[in-house]
Amino acid sequence: MSKHADILITHAHLFTMQGTGVGYISDGAVAVRGDQVVAVGQTEALNGRFQPHTTIDATGHAVLPGLIDAHMHTALSIMRGVAQDVTHWMQSALSPYSRHLTDAGRLAGTRLNVVEGLKAGTTTFADNYPPFPGWGAVYEQIGVRAVLSPGFNALPPGRMADWKVGALYPFDLAAGRQAMAQAVSYAQEWDGAGDGRITTMLGVHGADMMPLELLLEAKEIGQREGWLLHMHTAQGDRETEQIYKRYGKRPIAFLDEIGYLDEQLLAIHLTDATEEEAALVAQRGAKMIVCSGSIGIIDGIVPPAAAFKQAGGPVGLGSDQACGNNCNNIFNEMKLTALFNKIRYSDPTVMPAWEVLRMATIEGAQALGLDDKVGSLAAGKQADLILVDLTEPNLSPILQAPIRNIVPNLVYAGSGHEVKTVLVAGKVLVENGRLLTIDETAVVTAAQEQANLLAQKVAADPTHKNLALMTPMKAGQL
Amino acid sequence: MSKHADILITHAHLFTMQGTGVGYISDGAVAVRGDQVVAVGQTEALNGRFQPHTTIDATGHAVLPGLIDAHMHTALSIMRGVAQDVTHWMQSALSPYSRHLTDAGRLAGTRLNVVEGLKAGTTTFADNYPPFPGWGAVYEQIGVRAVLSPGFNALPPGRMADWKVGALYPFDLAAGRQAMAQAVSYAQEWDGAGDGRITTMLGVHGADMMPLELLLEAKEIGQREGWLLHMHTAQGDRETEQIYKRYGKRPIAFLDEIGYLDEQLLAIHLTDATEEEAALVAQRGAKMIVCSGSIGIIDGIVPPAAAFKQAGGPVGLGSDQACGNNCNNIFNEMKLTALFNKIRYSDPTVMPAWEVLRMATIEGAQALGLDDKVGSLAAGKQADLILVDLTEPNLSPILQAPIRNIVPNLVYAGSGHEVKTVLVAGKVLVENGRLLTIDETAVVTAAQEQANLLAQKVAADPTHKNLALMTPMKAGQL
Repeated sequence: MSKHADILITHAHLFTMQGTGVGYISDGAVAVRGDQVVAVGQTEALNGRFQPHTTIDATGHAVLPGLIDAHMHTALSIMRGVAQDVTHWMQSALSPYSRHLTDAGRLAGTRLNVVEGLKAGTTTFADNYPPFPGWGAVYEQIGVRAVLSPGFNALPPGRMADWKVGALYPFDLAAGRQAMAQAVSYAQEWDGAGDGRITTMLGVHGADMMPLELLLEAKEIGQREGWLLHMHTAQGDRETEQIYKRYGKRPIAFLDEIGYLDEQLLAIHLTDATEEEAALVAQRGAKMIVCSGSIGIIDGIVPPAAAFKQAGGPVGLGSDQACGNNCNNIFNEMKLTALFNKIRYSDPTVMPAWEVLRMATIEGAQALGLDDKVGSLAAGKQADLILVDLTEPNLSPILQAPIRNIVPNLVYAGSGHEVKTVLVAGKVLVENGRLLTIDETAVVTAAQEQANLLAQKVAADPTHKNLALMTPMKAGQL
Repeated sequence: MSKHADILITHAHLFTMQGTGVGYISDGAVAVRGDQVVAVGQTEALNGRFQPHTTIDATGHAVLPGLIDAHMHTALSIMRGVAQDVTHWMQSALSPYSRHLTDAGRLAGTRLNVVEGLKAGTTTFADNYPPFPGWGAVYEQIGVRAVLSPGFNALPPGRMADWKVGALYPFDLAAGRQAMAQAVSYAQEWDGAGDGRITTMLGVHGADMMPLELLLEAKEIGQREGWLLHMHTAQGDRETEQIYKRYGKRPIAFLDEIGYLDEQLLAIHLTDATEEEAALVAQRGAKMIVCSGSIGIIDGIVPPAAAFKQAGGPVGLGSDQACGNNCNNIFNEMKLTALFNKIRYSDPTVMPAWEVLRMATIEGAQALGLDDKVGSLAAGKQADLILVDLTEPNLSPILQAPIRNIVPNLVYAGSGHEVKTVLVAGKVLVENGRLLTIDETAVVTAAQEQANLLAQKVAADPTHKNLALMTPMKAGQL
């Protein structure tokens, strides 16, 4: 066995996430060669086995697999903070903005979200949006891992702002087929890009957003191409009402009937699924992504992720969009998921810290079908990992025996700013909090410029007067 | 009017928290002389009025009143992360540790918590604990504002670890009177210390923790001295059970009967109060502090703060203790309070961002009886304020019209690391994230040393084998 290692990380509080717990190794080390982990173990043992090119001393740091954000719409992030604390979020707050969003604004938003997530330890971004120029290249350039899920629906183009609460959405099958073809083509083009860091799924917007025939065509294409279907599923009373009006059934029953509940489904949200419905989705072999912060803000609801897990399905975490969350940070999602579920069940033992840390790493990887590559630290896996400074006051002190306090503190006290170093595929992307592959200030400045242009267009559009947030704005509450 | 200002802060997104909203001033400025704000207004106007010694350019920053943490037990913070995800938190997880805590450990913990809070924008710390050597001096030295609430109960000293779930607590009236006398003496000694930055209350541990006669004696002393009674109130089913067994009533009915529900009461938690009980406490003129993170983790409960506010009472935010929260960060408490209440009522419009920002500032000041000094930025108030960098990726972009997004983003996307500069009583305590009045590394190192000593004692005590967290520890989940 070669003694060469490109990077040897030593003296870490190492959480490999191997096995059924967190796979802790005291005074742990990780050897990296090329894009892979070649060994994990105790520092003393690996020091003897490897002659590294670079050694990273992780004393006082936790080392974890990179975090996985399994559902995002990064293209929306220059609208951060314009849609929360309202009812009918999409109609009353979001769409009067999003109708004016340009591709340049989307691109600036994607860059901003990736920078935000990467600084907070996210290494895998499952990004779901209709394709736009430059989208995949952001991920290729910055060097993180991405699961691009180009999306489509059959709603008449540019008409989302016209959706009325309670009215059945109009469908345009021809436009839907065209949008699907573009999504398919984009997914084919980008699958395997970035030296394999970028993989793809098909982003089926939702069962309420297209006619049955398009749903079935998408299913067939996904099977042919080997893609999961990344789909908002039972995503709220709005969807339930649409499906019930159209098919006389609740969404999960409808999806079961048309053969959508199987291993190919990445079910996003399940906001309006009962525990029984969530368990059925899990039993059929589908995966779930819970977006606690987003659904908490938008709906005031805690989705049935605990029931899904109990039924045996993997659950990953997602940060959704910045206009209604309002951040893209998996530390935030871990904490909220643990706390919301304790509250849902009035039981402090529900969703302990280690469970949500697994959801943010290995279980998220399982949900995305990437657990052969990422989600845990083991020889042969991709070297996606983060160093978290445990000497930050909010994560101190470190206790090891009789009770180790690191995982609870990461989940309940961590915020992401404690992430100092990030590797993806063996490459250092963040060093001591500084981004190495993209200019952070330029990204923020560009996002601000695009946001200013967008705000000007919204202000010039008389429909902005109907925005629900105009009321608190006028009352001096914003 | 003198044109001199010691400090002029210019070009801020200024949130004065004056009036009934957030009191926003675009391109705002704050003039500081000595320990006071002497003017707030637009930069152009104040530039003409003042010749400052120092100018702080706040371009790209929000400027807010310093945040108020209205209920803490900083002495416990070297036990961060040893007590969560369990039932019967105090008996099964906390007390096997806390019985071995020394005064040196408490002091190191207080320093750690103040550093943690200050870095995240907390300027007023309402700290509740039986007095120990050096406690008040930490606040005096670091220069923040404190409301010391020396605490006492009538439980036999050193026996908290013996509390059994379901058994009536034993009382030792003589020991209780002695502990109260020490608390009174400490409160007298420290009232007005630190050039008036330190004020005091009397920390009545809880109605279940002492006999009726001691409760009544404490009430009388508080009246005589002009102190609020900082008291855990209806703090859970444990307290309800004790009070019911002893007096045949629920806690709020009991407290009403003995005359405790009035303007003198700072009611902490109200975990087990119904909405009607919370409304009664508010109507009687008492104030409430809600500790969302702590009660969420420890009990899986959302206290009835919304009902208390609706009944007209002020509600402040508190971070409680690091062993069961696990952090002391008011950004965290704002977010959790807003989200938990949306979930409690399944309504995304409950507790909008501006409301929790008021709870963290002016309403917290009202609850503590400090609103003549702090909680908003206005001429004549103390110059306690923070600069928050809005160009951090997670707070970007800044939108101003037609909808201003800053307050929602501070609440839902902020984590505290964006706080760059902190002033208390006109003195700069934090500059560009660096603490000026205490050595952060030394504080963290000392806390770690004390934590190590504590852990050794716990490990040597055979009762640690009963710790609820030994089970996940052995299962590799910690």
